[in-house]
Amino acid sequence: MLEYVTDPGDPRLSDYTRLRDVELRKSLEAERGLFLAEGEKVIRRAVGAGYPIRSVLTTRRWLTSLQDVLGDATVYVVSDEIMSGIAGFQVHRGALASMERLPLPSVETLLKGLKGGPRRLLVLEDLVDHSNVGAIFRSAAALGVDAVVLSPRCADPLYRRAVKVSMGAVFSIPYARMDDWFRGLEQLREAGFRTLALTPDQSATPLEAAARSERVALLLGAEGDGLSSHWLEEADEAVCIPMSASAMAAGVDSLNVVAAAAIACHGLMRPAAP
Amino acid sequence: MLEYVTDPGDPRLSDYTRLRDVELRKSLEAERGLFLAEGEKVIRRAVGAGYPIRSVLTTRRWLTSLQDVLGDATVYVVSDEIMSGIAGFQVHRGALASMERLPLPSVETLLKGLKGGPRRLLVLEDLVDHSNVGAIFRSAAALGVDAVVLSPRCADPLYRRAVKVSMGAVFSIPYARMDDWFRGLEQLREAGFRTLALTPDQSATPLEAAARSERVALLLGAEGDGLSSHWLEEADEAVCIPMSASAMAAGVDSLNVVAAAAIACHGLMRPAAP
Ligand SMILES: C[S@@+](CC[C@H](N)C(=O)[O-])C[C@H]1O[C@@H](n2cnc3c(N)ncnc32)[C@H](O)[C@@H]1O
Ligand SMILES: C[S@@+](CC[C@H](N)C(=O)[O-])C[C@H]1O[C@@H](n2cnc3c(N)ncnc32)[C@H](O)[C@@H]1O
Repeated sequence: MLEYVTDPGDPRLSDYTRLRDVELRKSLEAERGLFLAEGEKVIRRAVGAGYPIRSVLTTRRWLTSLQDVLGDATVYVVSDEIMSGIAGFQVHRGALASMERLPLPSVETLLKGLKGGPRRLLVLEDLVDHSNVGAIFRSAAALGVDAVVLSPRCADPLYRRAVKVSMGAVFSIPYARMDDWFRGLEQLREAGFRTLALTPDQSATPLEAAARSERVALLLGAEGDGLSSHWLEEADEAVCIPMSASAMAAGVDSLNVVAAAAIACHGLMRPAAP
Repeated sequence: MLEYVTDPGDPRLSDYTRLRDVELRKSLEAERGLFLAEGEKVIRRAVGAGYPIRSVLTTRRWLTSLQDVLGDATVYVVSDEIMSGIAGFQVHRGALASMERLPLPSVETLLKGLKGGPRRLLVLEDLVDHSNVGAIFRSAAALGVDAVVLSPRCADPLYRRAVKVSMGAVFSIPYARMDDWFRGLEQLREAGFRTLALTPDQSATPLEAAARSERVALLLGAEGDGLSSHWLEEADEAVCIPMSASAMAAGVDSLNVVAAAAIACHGLMRPAAP
């Protein structure tokens, strides 16, 4: 259903307001239970993963490339000027969709779903950067991680920037959010996961020498603070990726969390030898 | 030397204009031979690495924390409003420095400097994203890479965003820019480097099985296009990081180049067994 909108202040466009204002978007998206998908590819993947479309915002030029995926969704067609005025940035491939969120499973339900065989989990503690969260989901998907668990305050994987950077991987990996940070690791251990805390501290066990297990959960911390001391102490083992001593002397004393996650997923998370 | 500036249009501030306009900054920085360092830590590292300061832009509040590193540099002190007006973003730790570029070595000179023993090189072909370039320098430094070679059109590691994301690693790893893309790999091979082309193509040699050599150059391509077919064919071996088949079916068909670089540096670049 096409609706041509010529007034940027039209209330029908209210799902799309103030796209660059992270704080406002967070509360608006939580309140209305929506998230934004940007660009044809990402919209297709979101629809393919079962998220219902609330509406689509696009310009005349991009209309045809989306036709087959839109079904009977409401499509607001605006001019290029209104589009870039609303977005405040160059919209990737000319389309934004407002999608309905689906209820997240509880951590318990998520872990119950991961029955038998070797299982790999990433656990993100309080990451604030949406690009990092998105990039970690992309690596996790590509490297065969089964699920992601977020700490209560970790950034939202369905935030526009995270979705985009993940290349839609946030739709293909199941994830859940802890509601209890303090007892979060306990719950993972009860489900049979060996918890490995990734830390730049070079006195920790080197990645290659870490004890393997059929069920492994890798814990990752944020850029500035790293993992909390509570989680570092609670984890079964602290594990580090060895770094160059001369780089550390020159002030490069940790890896970016995306790089650390990729190395750890690749290196450690293959099934334990039987 | 402190100079208080109250007019945002003052010509003394011209090194700092239009900070968010990538294209304008590129030509301005090339023309004047400058780059910008943002925040106390990064400014310190740049000075420590021998880059001369042209001037510093800061507010009263941040003045003291920089005092010892400034020497007799000219410091323009502005109000918070002028600062955020000029920058158009929240300046990290309240200070920007305009630094003089130093002449880059030629690729030949750079490689000649890497004598004897196992050597590891990253070669970036036409990467356009400054954050990716910065993040790769950070991983490269932390994981003991000896030097980076850029294709003629690769994004500038001294662009503000790249410097920031690298945590200053762009100052600690030597790098050079090829002037001949077509013969670029030839030159590396003549210097004794085995060139490995990293590709998501899962029919390439898996990373773990790639032939080792004392001198290894890892070639990395850009987000959209990947490596050129010329470089893929010219390289000694095409190498892939194995990915999950189900993720590929769901459309996640490559790793982000930062993740791929980190895994490859960690996994392949340790010295060949004697
Ligand atoms: C930028 S680091 C955090 C730095 C923080 N100053 C610290 O000391 O933890 C972000 C996260 O990446 C992971 N990380 C970074 N470098 C690592 C390394 N060399 N080995 C293992 N994990 C690392 C850790 O999970 C860390 O919490
Ligand atoms: C996002 S990928 C490029 C994707 C592009 N469509 C292609 O087919 O090459 C960017 C770069 O990361 C590296 N890369 C990504 N995934 C990789 C993998 N699984 N194995 C090896 N290198 C990979 C390659 O150097 C690639 O050029």
